[in-house]
Amino acid sequence: MSNDAYGYRGDGDLADRLRQAGLSLTVDEAKALLAGVLAAPPTHDGDSWLDLFGPALPGETADALRALKAALEAQAAPASPDAAGRLRALRDALRDRGVDGFVVPRSDEHQGEYVPAGARRLAWLTGFTGSAGMAVVAPERAALFVDGRYTLQARAEVPETLYEHRHLTDDPLAEWVAAALPAGGRLGYDPWLHTVGWVEKTRRDLDRAGIALMAVADNPVDAVWPGRPPAPLTPVVAHDTAFAGTTSADKRADVAARLRRDGVAAAVLTQPDSIAWLLNLRGGDVPCTPLPLSFAIIADDGGVELFIDRRKLVPGVDDHLGGAVTVRPPDALGAALDDLGRSGRKVLADPATGAAWIFDRLDGAGARVERGADPCALPKACKNAVELEGTRAAHRRDGVAMVRFLRWLSREAAAGAVTEMDAAAMLESLRAEGALFRGLSFETISGAGPNGAIVHYRVSPETNRRLEPGSLYLIDSGAQYLDGTTDVTRTVAIGEPTVEMRERFTLVLKGHIAVSTARFPRGTSGSQLDTLARHPLWQAGLDYDHGTGHGVGSYLSVHEGPQRISKVPNTVALLPGMILSNEPGYYKAGAYGIRIENLIVVQAMDDAVAAERPMLGFEVLTLAPIDLALIEPSLLSNAEVAWLNAYHLRVRHELTPLLDADTAAWLAAATGPLMV
Amino acid sequence: MSNDAYGYRGDGDLADRLRQAGLSLTVDEAKALLAGVLAAPPTHDGDSWLDLFGPALPGETADALRALKAALEAQAAPASPDAAGRLRALRDALRDRGVDGFVVPRSDEHQGEYVPAGARRLAWLTGFTGSAGMAVVAPERAALFVDGRYTLQARAEVPETLYEHRHLTDDPLAEWVAAALPAGGRLGYDPWLHTVGWVEKTRRDLDRAGIALMAVADNPVDAVWPGRPPAPLTPVVAHDTAFAGTTSADKRADVAARLRRDGVAAAVLTQPDSIAWLLNLRGGDVPCTPLPLSFAIIADDGGVELFIDRRKLVPGVDDHLGGAVTVRPPDALGAALDDLGRSGRKVLADPATGAAWIFDRLDGAGARVERGADPCALPKACKNAVELEGTRAAHRRDGVAMVRFLRWLSREAAAGAVTEMDAAAMLESLRAEGALFRGLSFETISGAGPNGAIVHYRVSPETNRRLEPGSLYLIDSGAQYLDGTTDVTRTVAIGEPTVEMRERFTLVLKGHIAVSTARFPRGTSGSQLDTLARHPLWQAGLDYDHGTGHGVGSYLSVHEGPQRISKVPNTVALLPGMILSNEPGYYKAGAYGIRIENLIVVQAMDDAVAAERPMLGFEVLTLAPIDLALIEPSLLSNAEVAWLNAYHLRVRHELTPLLDADTAAWLAAATGPLMV
Repeated sequence: MSNDAYGYRGDGDLADRLRQAGLSLTVDEAKALLAGVLAAPPTHDGDSWLDLFGPALPGETADALRALKAALEAQAAPASPDAAGRLRALRDALRDRGVDGFVVPRSDEHQGEYVPAGARRLAWLTGFTGSAGMAVVAPERAALFVDGRYTLQARAEVPETLYEHRHLTDDPLAEWVAAALPAGGRLGYDPWLHTVGWVEKTRRDLDRAGIALMAVADNPVDAVWPGRPPAPLTPVVAHDTAFAGTTSADKRADVAARLRRDGVAAAVLTQPDSIAWLLNLRGGDVPCTPLPLSFAIIADDGGVELFIDRRKLVPGVDDHLGGAVTVRPPDALGAALDDLGRSGRKVLADPATGAAWIFDRLDGAGARVERGADPCALPKACKNAVELEGTRAAHRRDGVAMVRFLRWLSREAAAGAVTEMDAAAMLESLRAEGALFRGLSFETISGAGPNGAIVHYRVSPETNRRLEPGSLYLIDSGAQYLDGTTDVTRTVAIGEPTVEMRERFTLVLKGHIAVSTARFPRGTSGSQLDTLARHPLWQAGLDYDHGTGHGVGSYLSVHEGPQRISKVPNTVALLPGMILSNEPGYYKAGAYGIRIENLIVVQAMDDAVAAERPMLGFEVLTLAPIDLALIEPSLLSNAEVAWLNAYHLRVRHELTPLLDADTAAWLAAATGPLMV
Repeated sequence: MSNDAYGYRGDGDLADRLRQAGLSLTVDEAKALLAGVLAAPPTHDGDSWLDLFGPALPGETADALRALKAALEAQAAPASPDAAGRLRALRDALRDRGVDGFVVPRSDEHQGEYVPAGARRLAWLTGFTGSAGMAVVAPERAALFVDGRYTLQARAEVPETLYEHRHLTDDPLAEWVAAALPAGGRLGYDPWLHTVGWVEKTRRDLDRAGIALMAVADNPVDAVWPGRPPAPLTPVVAHDTAFAGTTSADKRADVAARLRRDGVAAAVLTQPDSIAWLLNLRGGDVPCTPLPLSFAIIADDGGVELFIDRRKLVPGVDDHLGGAVTVRPPDALGAALDDLGRSGRKVLADPATGAAWIFDRLDGAGARVERGADPCALPKACKNAVELEGTRAAHRRDGVAMVRFLRWLSREAAAGAVTEMDAAAMLESLRAEGALFRGLSFETISGAGPNGAIVHYRVSPETNRRLEPGSLYLIDSGAQYLDGTTDVTRTVAIGEPTVEMRERFTLVLKGHIAVSTARFPRGTSGSQLDTLARHPLWQAGLDYDHGTGHGVGSYLSVHEGPQRISKVPNTVALLPGMILSNEPGYYKAGAYGIRIENLIVVQAMDDAVAAERPMLGFEVLTLAPIDLALIEPSLLSNAEVAWLNAYHLRVRHELTPLLDADTAAWLAAATGPLMV
């Protein structure tokens, strides 16, 4: 590569610069690192990738690397064939592998919500970019399975001439496969990309139809995908105990004690957020969630083998990890599982999230596999006092951004000059001014008018709408801060709302308040609380088609388990320190959407008057006004009005010291007492 | 047997009388029939057992049979050894069978709530008479496992010198067994008395402890139980379509269509109430539930094999059953299962209720077993219009008895002259005056003061208390009528209640009203409604430790599935026609108990204002006043007061025409409007 428009002065120059910086890296190694950097999502602080090369690089070395990165970024990726050509190529690859068909899911090796670029096989093959779905390719037919959220999007993205469109849950996969594959045919799957539960159920279903489900060792999509991005490379850093509250050594000791109690020799950890929590590590391999992709095994003595690309570990991380954590290359995982098998002792793995590959390998090694929950999930969910103090502080900064945003919106939107994209960008820029901001915790949902009624709406230039008088605007957004993760939804009247809008907003608010104020005995699950949020809507013949609340991590995933508030049965008891969202809604298709979301944290309510049993309740974390213009006071009980006024008083009290005088004045008006 | 005190004139005389009546029965056959009659629970109409001998018997023949029955009843049962001797005898029998230990559950072959006399092995062996529990006998040790309801009762009934007392769910069976049996030992079980699910789980648990779980073909308890009662014999009669609403032929066609839709050739029915529903048959083999014990197989063409003792079928039942139902002896079931296995087609059986024996036999015959819900359970639960009209009529008669009872109580109890047993007897006698009465639907719970706080309380001469001024009295009772099954609980203030009693009663009432008035979208399960009943109590730091509602049959079991209102996850969607109880409560140990129970039926609420989705709600069936003296009006919302007043108005309106003037006047006062 020669001197070019990006300022790159050639490999020889770079070699000099690397030497100058005292780095032993070759130019080829530097290029490989940069390929991984380019496969990672952009970061909030643009230059953090330089840490992969070394600390405190000389300016010239950094400049040379920046130039090379820009040059590589600008290089045209190898052209992929068109959709029909991609399908053809995959079918050829299937023939070579002796299978008649193949399943292409949206998931990666960790079954995560966000997947790295090289794992976006479904999007590459079919064009479908939704967050859930699956394609099946048969010799003469192919089908895309998506759920109700994505029916329209799939139609827009994926040609029905190539893929039949099916419903992910309503249309049985086995039926389609049985009709599309030859009798007695073989359907291939990549055992890294499916949970063991999925494989076992699908195998049973297909068995009945006379189809064999076969693991394929090398993913045929990868074989035909030109220029498939490599694994992402982003710096892995220690997460300070000042934020984590508990040292990794203490967490490992605690998890190890759980393993010993259950007679388990070791647990295989496949969830990157569990590993990030356990080892107090953070990274940036996927969008919106500050985690490094990795696998790990924790033994009942607290020792950990961490399977991760060593190049990601910035200086100091080894010291942070200490002697009880052994860093091994990702491809050493298989041999480590074999060792566990040979030990003859029990090995814990989570069938709900662990790839079938893990279980196959353990079984193959003769391991005594104990299927059970990821042992980090529950302790991770129960935030300690330091994490709770952190999230309260993060919510104050987030609240400042929300108040500034809502004030801006109240000035600008009524004039019809604001679009969904403008609003999302404004809120992000206001958040970015806050201390410890590390980026968004998910892609902002900014929905005006009818777009607000699309529950999973993501704004794009094609769908971008202006906020118009007489409409509702719904914004669901959140951020990652070093001390906490936020997620808040507010629905705002633009101009004058209709009576129906106000009535329905008030019903949603009643449900929101019922969850917020609920007391419940220890042992109660989130499923048991879900109806409190829906009951006021139900009484009016209304409902909403999503859960009421999800778990939220601490500077980690904005969606985490095991707790949730959902009508789907869940037997996990809520425990003090668990953070959840409380987000009932109402959606009138083609017209408007309403959602009111606060984060809440479970706390002991031992002061409850006359409590005969240990009771729990919630503390509200989110600090942002709820639009008074959308409330019909006559629908609220005195207790509900009292809750709203107390909440608004607290928002004002906590945020006013952090606001300029004009914004504080606006907030005072926005949080004035509601009179009945 | 000779002429004796019971008027029996001897076998020769009876032989003459039988011949005289035109019966081909021998005296020995008559005695065998009577042994079955004596093993059955007493019936409301004392002479119905005579129908087993033939219709319209001559008076002399009936008298001779009555005399013989009385003589047999008075015969001393063969003496059983004492508890230690029984245990010794069982241990000897275990040695003969080559097992080291044996499990003695409370259940019978149908896993039913009520079990016939000959199945009460746990009670015979240990003395424990509760409705749930299990004993395990090991060579040197034995244990009785009961749940929290029965801890005290077990201590009173079962010597701890012979049986260690353990908790049924908290203390793992496998742990105790592993400690009590020799290493590598064998634990026997009777595969008729456990569900396949229990066997599989227990086998896994014991496996880990190195203990083998072994099916034992002939129950060793039966082998050592002198004079164990035979199977009960009670007349099996047709249940008139005037009550059932749907003919058996139509029901069979409907179930067969479900089987064909699921590609199932036949279903094995092990639940006697499912079979009674399917074939429109009723009987009296167990207490409180009008069902004949039987097994059946329904094929996908609607044909049924009914496995039942033919002697129970009174004349006319064969005609009622028709040509598509084949009656076969109970011991022909095994061969029929073998046939199903040989057919090579799918056979449905319910793992939640089917005995392991059924599954073992099917597996042994190479059957393709499909594990799934009893196909009668759901259609049985959804009552048709005729059944609903019947239950409304039954509830009016039941309401008349309740009102007469409550009036009597209001006059008599304050004087301190009424005991729990008096009250229960009075209510039963008032119910028995109603048309179509067929007995109680469960043993009445009649609890005064602290006894009201014992959720499963059953009065006995030892525990019988007087109703005293300043206390609460709780009565939970129900009846079987030919046209419906009732179950109602009322809590009544005797004299002046305390402020605390009134406040807590009102909180229970608020939960009761919340369930009654709930609207909910189709697809909602009873689990989702449970919290509505608890929420007002939770807010005060209180709760209750039982479910909120159970399904109720139509002149069948007072407890039926698959629906229920419970915090235990249940994904069965509520459907129109399902009858449920609504019975929140509050219990202050050692002081008083509160429960308010109505039966309610799911109905479509298509008239709901502005309903965007098909909504469901409840109609209240039970008609009985709720004690106004126990209500603290200031704790009720206007809507709750309106519900109570409307309910009381309806009770008054529906029952007054059926009451004498004095009772009507009392009811008018008891249901007067509550003023806030």
